[in-house]
Amino acid sequence: MLGHLYETQDCSVARSLELIGERWSLLILRDAVFVGHTRFNQFMTSLEIAPNILAKRLSGFVDCGLMELTVEGDYRLTRKGRELKPVLVALALWGDKWVRPGPIAFVETGTGKPVNQAFLGGRRELDVDEVAAIPRASRTS
Amino acid sequence: MLGHLYETQDCSVARSLELIGERWSLLILRDAVFVGHTRFNQFMTSLEIAPNILAKRLSGFVDCGLMELTVEGDYRLTRKGRELKPVLVALALWGDKWVRPGPIAFVETGTGKPVNQAFLGGRRELDVDEVAAIPRASRTS
Repeated sequence: MLGHLYETQDCSVARSLELIGERWSLLILRDAVFVGHTRFNQFMTSLEIAPNILAKRLSGFVDCGLMELTVEGDYRLTRKGRELKPVLVALALWGDKWVRPGPIAFVETGTGKPVNQAFLGGRRELDVDEVAAIPRASRTS
Repeated sequence: MLGHLYETQDCSVARSLELIGERWSLLILRDAVFVGHTRFNQFMTSLEIAPNILAKRLSGFVDCGLMELTVEGDYRLTRKGRELKPVLVALALWGDKWVRPGPIAFVETGTGKPVNQAFLGGRRELDVDEVAAIPRASRTS
């Protein structure tokens, strides 16, 4: 939670960053999304994060609807939280390619087969240089 | 540039965040990737960012190979920088759906047709709940 630092930035990237752009936030969400952590102590152990920071982040995630706190004390991802998976996968794949290969592979649940993340124009996969951003009102199709 | 705060996190998400996880960094990269800004003053005007912070970020991007500084004084994205597009698009699409619809649409250059971002298992699009992360060594295919 960065607060509203980007008020002049009427942009989905800016608004998403307000919710998840803080440096610990995405790492907590990563462990929730891909490792399946739900307990305060699980996050604290795996991330070596200070308890006061972790408590603040988890509470913020509940406040903004990324997680629900159950009566048993589990922080469970909502659909809104689980749909951050494309952001996390994009970050991981980029890091694998451009920083250093990591220890994780993304696979289809059930089959265990590799998963790709792609831009699709119709049914064709597009290169990053074939994707542009335009004002929504002028969209031509 | 967050520095090596995540040394114990042997993970592509963590390592990518070291490079781009700072709050201003992704906004600068967004303007470079989608608006096409290359000049110091263009970024400063559009982001209302303090010049010392902007200078530090751009210099960091050059140092880590996301941008090249030309003799004309343009900060040009490298392929490494342009391949951050999936991260930016994933953030924007998530914000459009879960925070508030934004003013930008993603389209195919040339045709102007809408672009989707998807997880692909074979040629089938997968739901986020069908994508799992596993240790690379145990990948089964």
